[in-house]
Amino acid sequence: MKYRVFVTLKPGVLDPQGEAIRHALGSLGFEGVNSVRQGKMIELDLAEDDVAKAESIAREMCERLLANTVIEKFQIEAV
Amino acid sequence: MKYRVFVTLKPGVLDPQGEAIRHALGSLGFEGVNSVRQGKMIELDLAEDDVAKAESIAREMCERLLANTVIEKFQIEAV
Repeated sequence: MKYRVFVTLKPGVLDPQGEAIRHALGSLGFEGVNSVRQGKMIELDLAEDDVAKAESIAREMCERLLANTVIEKFQIEAV
Repeated sequence: MKYRVFVTLKPGVLDPQGEAIRHALGSLGFEGVNSVRQGKMIELDLAEDDVAKAESIAREMCERLLANTVIEKFQIEAV
């Protein structure tokens, strides 16, 4: 099973990378950028074929390694 | 208009971050991980309301700043 995991900062958590991108876009002449937030996308290719099992493995991977659940949230999407 | 931009390494380009995650998952006892690739997700909130114009702005932002099109590909998705 293949999954795409999206890890993003929770709302309200300061995102300096996103702010840096917003400033850089401004310097390049792009106007009207209200906000920019940067997150991570992780593509997992798991050997497990059972959909329910594979999804539960992916979720555990997020909780234990991929996301810092204190400040980040994650979303798992089958590909 | 709000967009999600996904920037990933082109197939064949070595992904050390993804490899590091794969090893870390192995150390945590997760088996059967065929591959891991890491990419970036950028959430853009643009003031432009015209769908066609906003999408073309987002595309230009990717080409000029967000993605290194030599080694990365990008995908834009309206939210």
